[in-house]
Amino acid sequence: MLDQILAPDLESLLEEKKEDDIRAFLRELHPADIADILMGLEPRAALDALKIIGQEGAAKVFRKLPEPFQVDIAEFLDAVDLTALARSLAPDDRVRLLKALPVERSEALLSLMDKKEGDDMRKMARFTEGTAGSLMTTEYLAMSRDATAGSCLGRIRLGGGAAGSILSVFALGDEGLLEGSASLAALIRANPDEKLSKIMDPKPLSIAALNDRKEVFSLFFRYDLLSLPVVDAEGALLGLITHDDMVGALERERTADMERFMAISGAHDNTPYLHTTIWQNFRNRIGWLIIFAFIGLLSGTILQSFGQTLASFLLLAFYMPMLANTGGISGSQSAAIIVRAIILKEILPKDVFRVFWKEMKTALLLGLTLGFLAFARVMLTSAAFQIPGAITIMDIGLAISIALAVQVIVSTILGAVLPIMAAYFGANPAHSGSPALMTIADITGFFIYFGVARLILRL
Amino acid sequence: MLDQILAPDLESLLEEKKEDDIRAFLRELHPADIADILMGLEPRAALDALKIIGQEGAAKVFRKLPEPFQVDIAEFLDAVDLTALARSLAPDDRVRLLKALPVERSEALLSLMDKKEGDDMRKMARFTEGTAGSLMTTEYLAMSRDATAGSCLGRIRLGGGAAGSILSVFALGDEGLLEGSASLAALIRANPDEKLSKIMDPKPLSIAALNDRKEVFSLFFRYDLLSLPVVDAEGALLGLITHDDMVGALERERTADMERFMAISGAHDNTPYLHTTIWQNFRNRIGWLIIFAFIGLLSGTILQSFGQTLASFLLLAFYMPMLANTGGISGSQSAAIIVRAIILKEILPKDVFRVFWKEMKTALLLGLTLGFLAFARVMLTSAAFQIPGAITIMDIGLAISIALAVQVIVSTILGAVLPIMAAYFGANPAHSGSPALMTIADITGFFIYFGVARLILRL
Repeated sequence: MLDQILAPDLESLLEEKKEDDIRAFLRELHPADIADILMGLEPRAALDALKIIGQEGAAKVFRKLPEPFQVDIAEFLDAVDLTALARSLAPDDRVRLLKALPVERSEALLSLMDKKEGDDMRKMARFTEGTAGSLMTTEYLAMSRDATAGSCLGRIRLGGGAAGSILSVFALGDEGLLEGSASLAALIRANPDEKLSKIMDPKPLSIAALNDRKEVFSLFFRYDLLSLPVVDAEGALLGLITHDDMVGALERERTADMERFMAISGAHDNTPYLHTTIWQNFRNRIGWLIIFAFIGLLSGTILQSFGQTLASFLLLAFYMPMLANTGGISGSQSAAIIVRAIILKEILPKDVFRVFWKEMKTALLLGLTLGFLAFARVMLTSAAFQIPGAITIMDIGLAISIALAVQVIVSTILGAVLPIMAAYFGANPAHSGSPALMTIADITGFFIYFGVARLILRL
Repeated sequence: MLDQILAPDLESLLEEKKEDDIRAFLRELHPADIADILMGLEPRAALDALKIIGQEGAAKVFRKLPEPFQVDIAEFLDAVDLTALARSLAPDDRVRLLKALPVERSEALLSLMDKKEGDDMRKMARFTEGTAGSLMTTEYLAMSRDATAGSCLGRIRLGGGAAGSILSVFALGDEGLLEGSASLAALIRANPDEKLSKIMDPKPLSIAALNDRKEVFSLFFRYDLLSLPVVDAEGALLGLITHDDMVGALERERTADMERFMAISGAHDNTPYLHTTIWQNFRNRIGWLIIFAFIGLLSGTILQSFGQTLASFLLLAFYMPMLANTGGISGSQSAAIIVRAIILKEILPKDVFRVFWKEMKTALLLGLTLGFLAFARVMLTSAAFQIPGAITIMDIGLAISIALAVQVIVSTILGAVLPIMAAYFGANPAHSGSPALMTIADITGFFIYFGVARLILRL
């Protein structure tokens, strides 16, 4: 934890106002590392450090800070300094800050920008979180399709496109329509007099600004992209999604999926944890909790319907948690294996019967092994237990071990089949995962357990 | 599902041997899309389609096919044709195919390569799965640090570096040591006579070939990289990990994490699902299943220690599943929220008490709401149930609802605190996730439930 070690050092340097030492200390570090160190400081001290770093470097560090911390730092800046800071950021980072700021501050910021800058920011800020447009930057290099390779390179030489990070040049037709893109390597290789329209890839992938950002991720992954142009409904170029902005948004999306998976509803995006209210927190969780409580009541009702059996053989109750655990886990195991194989394309829809057959055989082996172990355990440890009527401990052992084997087999196969079915119908197989399976395993478990017990104990 | 619609079309074109139509049909598609369509065909037909596409295009499609399908296709090729196919692939894709092939085929392939090619492949194949070296390609452009910008651009013009996809030029010092890297944009902007050593970023990030590939992912994400050079122990340049190869490996890693999370042990990498044996399948799962069965037995033993209470108040048993569900889910909910906030850096280590306090308040609200609902439910539906002795249904209702409230509060706080502790000690917070919490919730649940019941029912 580099950042936890270095933050106190930096803090004492700041207190002693040793600016040169601070500069020397931070010069060796990557902006991402500096951001981590600053996050260990109070916002006021972090701002002092940023000022010492100097404008260009500070912008690179500032963009790596989480938005709530950016807002905390901004509180120590007056409107003029805040505007200067915002100006030093790349357009997309600037809009991100604008959206995170309280309304009165963001309006003060906009009023101090010149008209074109302010309009650009308002235009970008209008794309709501979750759209492709909200991920784009307006820093890119676009030339007329009739421009020559030489003139494109000349523009790059003059600093066109984002500083240092330009990867390709876009070719525009009439009315700003995106007609192609050319990599820097292609421009270097081309004859300087050749027209962009001859060099460019004439069918560049692009995305409409209002499309869901999930489509951005799948385009990046599927086609191994480094950047993706964003267009309006007519096909005019609006901006560019770079690889690093895609990755940042992906992390937000993946973790939101995790929350959804764990039964949390509501907005997953806008408010950082420490800024949500208790009431929001409560509201996002209570719904699913009540639903799961209700499912638990259902299981309880099933259990109640076997009340007579349970009352006669209390011993059965003590093995219930074992049945529930092994059922839930064996289903989750096969689900995880199958979901992985689907994602990695090791299994195709046509393989469904091979998968079923293979899981069936594995399930049989697992079920028999666990059943045998459970039988041994009952015989060894529960022999002294009082059992009513003509029933022997051997009967009970058989009932428990057969129920366990059936439970493991049923759960394993359910765990394998549900994700394949989900994938077949175009759903995300990962969502047929753990909580759903645990619940299904619970309910089928009671039926299997008491069903087998009644059968074997002849009730 | 474009691929499922188009595969039959392609199949009939192949049967009728309409080569021109096939070419026209496939020309409009991206290699990734063609690969998806081919996967719906028999390997033999897929090979026919690849042959019609022509060598360069076929290589781009072939690399997008999953390895087992590559091997299936290779079975229809003799050694000479297989070698030709392998030669058309990029070095890293070639090694991936080599590793996937059966030993006798891969040896035949190597024996037909010329000595240098074969040695290169053997060298790359030696890096085992999971190392940074196994992800690299040897297609990159490296120049002496004394080369000029103009000569670098000249080499690119002559086709140096990977065809089309080159992003930067590496600067080598004595003995091939990596000393810097320069982006194409920097080369274009530089004076043609300037030396690479003046243009380059002198401290490029790199990774040692034997390091774990997990470090590759964290470097890419943390520093927004587009590619990462791989060096040997002395710092000499060995190869390059490109962004798309990183993403492919990441998908394998993420899904392997999912398997580990769901309690599957063993090798997660090398063998595709349909190629594993039943015995391997069994062995990877049985261990954790037995462990979870054992934990279930522990819960059962705890239950057994409350056997007298349970026998007197069978009604308590029927509410057990509800307690278990709500406990498990409320813990998972707060864990998911906190893990997400940690990953997105919304929470820093210094915030631990604020988080605890906030979750405590949310937990109280959740617990009281659910407790109230449970009380109402007991009073409304279980009034007719027979209760022994001087105990009223009101007592039972109170016992169940208080136990539920306590259970939800304890699980919520555990769910929040465990990931923060994991993160504090440098572990992956995501691993303190669902199954662990469900199990802890199970065991604490029994103690809370019967403890509260005994207290209130004065047993």
